[in-house]
Amino acid sequence: MDLKEIYAPVETDLMAVEARLKSTSNVDFPHLARLIAHCLKGEGKRIRPSLALLSGKFFDYNLERLIPMATALEILHTATLVHDDAIDHSPMRRSQPTVNKLWGQEQAVLLGDYLFAEAGHLTASTGNLRAVELFARTLKTISSGEIDQAVNAFTLGQTYEQYLQRIARKTATLFTASTESGAILSGASERAIQQLIDYGYNLGIGFQIVDDILDFIGTEDQLGKPTGSDLSQGTVTLPVLLLIQSYPEERAVKDLFKERNNHENIKDVIALVSNSPRVIDGCYREAMVYCDRAFKSLADLPENAARRSLQELTGYIIRRKK
Amino acid sequence: MDLKEIYAPVETDLMAVEARLKSTSNVDFPHLARLIAHCLKGEGKRIRPSLALLSGKFFDYNLERLIPMATALEILHTATLVHDDAIDHSPMRRSQPTVNKLWGQEQAVLLGDYLFAEAGHLTASTGNLRAVELFARTLKTISSGEIDQAVNAFTLGQTYEQYLQRIARKTATLFTASTESGAILSGASERAIQQLIDYGYNLGIGFQIVDDILDFIGTEDQLGKPTGSDLSQGTVTLPVLLLIQSYPEERAVKDLFKERNNHENIKDVIALVSNSPRVIDGCYREAMVYCDRAFKSLADLPENAARRSLQELTGYIIRRKK
Repeated sequence: MDLKEIYAPVETDLMAVEARLKSTSNVDFPHLARLIAHCLKGEGKRIRPSLALLSGKFFDYNLERLIPMATALEILHTATLVHDDAIDHSPMRRSQPTVNKLWGQEQAVLLGDYLFAEAGHLTASTGNLRAVELFARTLKTISSGEIDQAVNAFTLGQTYEQYLQRIARKTATLFTASTESGAILSGASERAIQQLIDYGYNLGIGFQIVDDILDFIGTEDQLGKPTGSDLSQGTVTLPVLLLIQSYPEERAVKDLFKERNNHENIKDVIALVSNSPRVIDGCYREAMVYCDRAFKSLADLPENAARRSLQELTGYIIRRKK
Repeated sequence: MDLKEIYAPVETDLMAVEARLKSTSNVDFPHLARLIAHCLKGEGKRIRPSLALLSGKFFDYNLERLIPMATALEILHTATLVHDDAIDHSPMRRSQPTVNKLWGQEQAVLLGDYLFAEAGHLTASTGNLRAVELFARTLKTISSGEIDQAVNAFTLGQTYEQYLQRIARKTATLFTASTESGAILSGASERAIQQLIDYGYNLGIGFQIVDDILDFIGTEDQLGKPTGSDLSQGTVTLPVLLLIQSYPEERAVKDLFKERNNHENIKDVIALVSNSPRVIDGCYREAMVYCDRAFKSLADLPENAARRSLQELTGYIIRRKK
């Protein structure tokens, strides 16, 4: 199943989200309108809004609340990407030049701020204080995770537990916020909310592990950005942890981060990772553990098309090439 | 009257705000705790929380809602300063090294994001959706104002109306949000809310005009940052507009921004402004118009200690040297 088929139960509503995203750039300041339109163009996978909508399908599926919330989640996600790219001076994202590349870092930071506020505004428009509280807590967790990542950049000796904690804060939190808010806004029981939280958390961890694998084995064309970006930024991900564990005596491994700007060394490490089935398979096995847990979290939810989509998504996450 | 006397009717409650600000750094990630503590140290004038508290004093003064809101306003203000400094690469703020100076631009951007979320979280904790909506709208307005400022940097030919619109978005919006949220959370009538909005708007404009004057005539010691920062960043403020109007034939005026890095020329313009009573007095007259309007906005509110404080504040704004 491809994403389009998986999203089928919420296809029309995702189009409404897309329209809402588009209308975000209806502001009477033409320059700002251009910036917003550029970064909300329909290039993303829209996983987070889809999770919110699908999670609402088990209960009282209320589009008046779910559409603004789903839109807010995608805008929040976009805002964090705009800031990440500004901080990392990244030139490309989703095969397009970044905001910082086109208009400078200053405007990228301010645009991210604007988008955070826009997302908060949309969340407030659901009229649900629990969703607003969840939204604010999510952004706190994401940014503290990013600060942790920045502090630990170019540092070896990180443990698997630290890695897990970091990707939980950086990625799984927003997946959880998506399923949780969808459930809350549809009047789910606390038990069902918790099941969807578990699903979102495990899917998010699986998603990020695969993202970290693809950063090594994907092509620039598939990724929409250069291969090996994480390592160049000094971010140690699971493939690097497994490489160090498996081949501690390799010269390139021993020299990693000894000099921050040793690009040759970083290239060698990228090649070692991408050519090592032991490392890549090991990472995929780990991702599958989490996707399997996500699948199982759904067991007690009513059997319907949305549940089948969420189940299928756990397989898609593993299969995906971009 | 100095600020301490003006704040007297809410002195104890401001101490509670201070304690709440302090507790923001109680997080279990020591590095983040250090960053937060650094930028929330008690060095600011705390005008925004004071405005919220004083605005609540006319109605049902509910500290359970007002203290988190007042704290949120100061944190939101701080977050915008942290981002401004990161963007401008400013080394000093409130006589201390900035976050970007101490820990780098990357962490400053992420810390600002964290603080926005923290402020949003506190606002949500008031349980008042109108306050949450106001908060999000305020951040949208501020960041769009900052984007406007960035786009128009190093551009001459800006009008007084454009300047007014910019400082309204950049500064007056948050003053308005402070008085408005204080009124809303205390159950004020719509009429009283509007009077306090008018007060906040006019006070904010007056405050920013004086800020723009002080940027030229204050000492580095008083300002806590270098004199003439605005012009060095390419920001055209009222003193420069009046200078251009009054002395269009001066060489330094004619050469302004012809080359972006002509520091000598910028120094000359700063000297021209600060030595021109015509320009400085003209700006102060304009600031007084707004402070006077702010004073008059209070006319129909009940006569009490809070009203006297808000009235006194309009005079303090003009007198202040930092």
